[in-house]
Amino acid sequence: MVIVMKPSATKEAIEKIQRKMESLGCQVCVTQGDNYCLLGLVGDTSKINPSQIEANENVDRLLKVQHPFKRASRVFQPHDTIIDVDGIKIGGGNVVIMAGPCAVESEEQLMTIAREVKKHGAKFLRGGAFKPRTSPYSFQGMKEEGLKLLKKAKEETGMPIVTEVMCQETFDIVAEYTDILQIGARNMQNFALLKKAGQCNIPILLKRGMSATIEEFLMSAEYIMAEGNANVILCERGIRTFETYTRNTLDISAIPAIKELSHLPIIVDPSHAAGKWAMVEPLSKAAVAVGADGLIIEVHHEPDTALSDGAQSLKPKKFGKLMTTLNHMAAALEK
Amino acid sequence: MVIVMKPSATKEAIEKIQRKMESLGCQVCVTQGDNYCLLGLVGDTSKINPSQIEANENVDRLLKVQHPFKRASRVFQPHDTIIDVDGIKIGGGNVVIMAGPCAVESEEQLMTIAREVKKHGAKFLRGGAFKPRTSPYSFQGMKEEGLKLLKKAKEETGMPIVTEVMCQETFDIVAEYTDILQIGARNMQNFALLKKAGQCNIPILLKRGMSATIEEFLMSAEYIMAEGNANVILCERGIRTFETYTRNTLDISAIPAIKELSHLPIIVDPSHAAGKWAMVEPLSKAAVAVGADGLIIEVHHEPDTALSDGAQSLKPKKFGKLMTTLNHMAAALEK
Amino acid sequence: MVIVMKPSATKEAIEKIQRKMESLGCQVCVTQGDNYCLLGLVGDTSKINPSQIEANENVDRLLKVQHPFKRASRVFQPHDTIIDVDGIKIGGGNVVIMAGPCAVESEEQLMTIAREVKKHGAKFLRGGAFKPRTSPYSFQGMKEEGLKLLKKAKEETGMPIVTEVMCQETFDIVAEYTDILQIGARNMQNFALLKKAGQCNIPILLKRGMSATIEEFLMSAEYIMAEGNANVILCERGIRTFETYTRNTLDISAIPAIKELSHLPIIVDPSHAAGKWAMVEPLSKAAVAVGADGLIIEVHHEPDTALSDGAQSLKPKKFGKLMTTLNHMAAALEK
Amino acid sequence: MVIVMKPSATKEAIEKIQRKMESLGCQVCVTQGDNYCLLGLVGDTSKINPSQIEANENVDRLLKVQHPFKRASRVFQPHDTIIDVDGIKIGGGNVVIMAGPCAVESEEQLMTIAREVKKHGAKFLRGGAFKPRTSPYSFQGMKEEGLKLLKKAKEETGMPIVTEVMCQETFDIVAEYTDILQIGARNMQNFALLKKAGQCNIPILLKRGMSATIEEFLMSAEYIMAEGNANVILCERGIRTFETYTRNTLDISAIPAIKELSHLPIIVDPSHAAGKWAMVEPLSKAAVAVGADGLIIEVHHEPDTALSDGAQSLKPKKFGKLMTTLNHMAAALEK
Repeated sequence: MVIVMKPSATKEAIEKIQRKMESLGCQVCVTQGDNYCLLGLVGDTSKINPSQIEANENVDRLLKVQHPFKRASRVFQPHDTIIDVDGIKIGGGNVVIMAGPCAVESEEQLMTIAREVKKHGAKFLRGGAFKPRTSPYSFQGMKEEGLKLLKKAKEETGMPIVTEVMCQETFDIVAEYTDILQIGARNMQNFALLKKAGQCNIPILLKRGMSATIEEFLMSAEYIMAEGNANVILCERGIRTFETYTRNTLDISAIPAIKELSHLPIIVDPSHAAGKWAMVEPLSKAAVAVGADGLIIEVHHEPDTALSDGAQSLKPKKFGKLMTTLNHMAAALEK
Repeated sequence: MVIVMKPSATKEAIEKIQRKMESLGCQVCVTQGDNYCLLGLVGDTSKINPSQIEANENVDRLLKVQHPFKRASRVFQPHDTIIDVDGIKIGGGNVVIMAGPCAVESEEQLMTIAREVKKHGAKFLRGGAFKPRTSPYSFQGMKEEGLKLLKKAKEETGMPIVTEVMCQETFDIVAEYTDILQIGARNMQNFALLKKAGQCNIPILLKRGMSATIEEFLMSAEYIMAEGNANVILCERGIRTFETYTRNTLDISAIPAIKELSHLPIIVDPSHAAGKWAMVEPLSKAAVAVGADGLIIEVHHEPDTALSDGAQSLKPKKFGKLMTTLNHMAAALEK
Repeated sequence: MVIVMKPSATKEAIEKIQRKMESLGCQVCVTQGDNYCLLGLVGDTSKINPSQIEANENVDRLLKVQHPFKRASRVFQPHDTIIDVDGIKIGGGNVVIMAGPCAVESEEQLMTIAREVKKHGAKFLRGGAFKPRTSPYSFQGMKEEGLKLLKKAKEETGMPIVTEVMCQETFDIVAEYTDILQIGARNMQNFALLKKAGQCNIPILLKRGMSATIEEFLMSAEYIMAEGNANVILCERGIRTFETYTRNTLDISAIPAIKELSHLPIIVDPSHAAGKWAMVEPLSKAAVAVGADGLIIEVHHEPDTALSDGAQSLKPKKFGKLMTTLNHMAAALEK
Repeated sequence: MVIVMKPSATKEAIEKIQRKMESLGCQVCVTQGDNYCLLGLVGDTSKINPSQIEANENVDRLLKVQHPFKRASRVFQPHDTIIDVDGIKIGGGNVVIMAGPCAVESEEQLMTIAREVKKHGAKFLRGGAFKPRTSPYSFQGMKEEGLKLLKKAKEETGMPIVTEVMCQETFDIVAEYTDILQIGARNMQNFALLKKAGQCNIPILLKRGMSATIEEFLMSAEYIMAEGNANVILCERGIRTFETYTRNTLDISAIPAIKELSHLPIIVDPSHAAGKWAMVEPLSKAAVAVGADGLIIEVHHEPDTALSDGAQSLKPKKFGKLMTTLNHMAAALEK
């Protein structure tokens, strides 16, 4: 941490802050310039509250040197985290495909899609039973009935399940049925839910909030890890910008950025990023090329009757074609 | 709703969609141009799922004509909602001031600040007992102990309390102690919490999410209202943009926009918007001038020892001076 | 400037950079922590090229301490710049109103509007003769013919003229007719045009670019000032965000921010910020309340036949009413 | 175009607008709902000025149906534009690599880098002679001297040249030396420069503005094409968002979006998008995978002495390795 003093700060004011910082247990190194004075803080800065320093009238600004996350940081753990679910490895260079409908709608719908995505090489089945919708009047999911259908689909296809958990109250019932618990973009800073997720031992698929910085995203992972659950899979799903042609703007740079800052696996959701099925294929290829650990893709056999997100769902045949291309690409990238 | 067909759509494809829309209960008016065909839908469009239409390969785009909110809409209720809390009216042109510390830290701290803000004209006491923090390692609030202190402050000063509720689990305990329940920006789309808030009859102070559009903001109010609680106070607290000099960018235009679209009261939080105490005064004046129904301001007698948000807290004396200016302004604007 | 070294940087690498910085003429103060090492640079840092330092493989990041602008900075000149045009003072607390049509369309149109805005208290007449339009097929302005009409309107009403200059080629002809030269948002970083503007002695009204940070905005002013023209008036006209209800998002906080960082006058353009005439009144009041030095407002007597920006133009009567309110407010704020 | 009338609009008001639209030469189809009335306009809408309609007090909103660009549109020209420069084809599926230093600094520097990038497979040599810099105090380029060096490098290596033109005044001198004229992001809406570019017959490399929508980007291409120059190469170079870890956010979705909307070639600049050399490799791979027609990459043999953009320049060896990977990928994608 570096404290930048105001040009008007007196020698006394500078010494006062210096003594206070030292009393909190860190060492202070003063750099005196013509117009400003810098206080470099090293050692144990954990007891320092940045907002208190910034509230000081003699302080111009505070420059942060280190990222605030620890357990999620590659400095803390240099090697990649690899999460094993039923023998399938997520992280460390594999490209794992999760696919399925946006929402579970019926047994027939789910089974049809599950068989198709399995056939084309998906490793996990995704499907929403509790659906977060911007309108209270939209379909809110089949709830527990949907969870039971997901379980049935797993029994038949052998694919482990990814489904979203929306709140503390339904946490345990969702946790009972699923292999990976998804926390949605709108709940990325629902700290109560993150703590709850940290207290179980099921892998968590954490989606990036619509306007979350990469640092905030990793701090939400830190919340889960701080409670004891180290199995966090990150998911980039597009951020909000001024561009309106796409539903969101896929932040493809976030993948190499997170690979540098963290050891956690990071996958990409091209369906929500674009909001248009025709863009799922090119964005999936970009995600694999940039180094993502996997993809989560919405597939529906009849998108124009889908109860949610039909516009961004691939038909099974197009999904199959995409899988073939991704396999060729992955092979080429290994060379 | 207007469906824009692709230039390539055949006559049969157009008629098929037309029949489907009619079977869902609405009337369709076809406008045929040289390069495209438009289907205007009127009547009861409530059974139409936009995403299904967009999933149709012959459809280019869907243009929405009406806003999706109903109970929150000024079309639904032309007159301003006025919420009465202990005889204090929020909405309809009053400028109500809520003030207090970011977090309740101790009895002495809270009482000192409560007395000061009361003296200068604040009508409500704000203070956080459960604190949403981006870091799991930061001070998380005094919790129930804090709620008890808020109650005590109310007993002494007579000011009703505004405090944040963060999750379903602690909802009832917070609801027991407070007069207005605040839902924070990060929980604006925590739909489970919104539903819970809709099931009580305490006024809800709903903060705008960091990257929420005005329409999404009003849809979150709709969630609460759809469950039966019509007492929603909206709060603009800055949105996230590329500008980094301020913590957030206060979207001052949102106030007249919401006044046009909705009948609900809307107040402004200049402290979180700017993140700098020196900007609280000018932004407060702008908020009153633009027509906000109130302000919620962070005040601390010793900002450089505050456990959170010291950098954006006003000292009581500056708060007092601001109150005098706002009174002059309000008088001038009435002329 | 503070150089943050990578944790992996060796002692030799650190010393090498230290020596290099010293050879460029500045003093270096090393702060050694457990995980990282900081190099604080003071003295004459003008010969340092930040990008070269960041290109060094042992450097993690560079933290900038001082703003890059000099002539535009309040550190360089503590007192407010006040620009005098025909005896009208801009800056230093006055609220100057500039008003007129978006584009000059005809003698009758311009004269009608000029008389109206004059009557209601505007001090400057605005009007575009060369119009920057996003479509090459839109009306591009009356060009020199329009400039002549502006001159005529000045002769009759006595109001000095503000009009936009779009390029080097037409610079001299525009400069001949106008009292203040406007540089539009899209040209805020047209460095060739900024240099040209710096070489004349006419006051420049510089509009903020749609996605320009406050620092970049001031750096564009610096370009003009570095060439010798110190008469720069800044203009906040809304920035681009994800919100689509308004044309742009008025960054009201930019006014106090710029007042702190710079001595230059700053005015507000509520017409372009909102894009809707109904919002011009509330935003104008907010701008005056927040401390802006003036307003530039689009007025048209027949907005639904205006050749550009009719949707955001006030009718003269509404403009008159607004002027009365602003006068009351300004009086109240002086108390 | 669809006009949405306000609920309060009377029958007379609706008929008045309808007649006006018909008098401008288009056909109007009225769809009457319970709460609103829609006017669908078809036929020749070219004489309609949207802002005039929106200025009408009875109009709620205007919904645009067609994109405003024509010559740049795939509707206008379904097949890909392929631009031939010295026998090298840009567009239509080739992946063309342009590489070189950010700025020309000396003969030795340019020749060294030119030989290296040629050796590794670059087809074009990029290098700036006139440099747009945010600070007036930064290195502004070698100007004509730099152009002469570029010409010399072409003579030796045979690679055609890409260099930036910043203004009308220096247009002809730059045009004399280069094979492709680059217009920078900050000049994307410098309409005077776009018109000038449209009047020559040299291919134009047009960079997307920092906060330009895809539609605005294509409208800037339209400006050039409307003047007669159809040889426009688009370049996505990152947009401005709230994320600060990267210099800009590469909008990878813009590539498939533009491929759908337009027939023009689109390439990617990963160097400016990320601002960090370590991200150039993954972003380049993503760009090729997503379907870009080429890449423009900054290469420098000694980045830590580069006069500009050292932090984002690849060393020749890393550039060579990247070229090998891209060749493997391109082969895999063709399967």
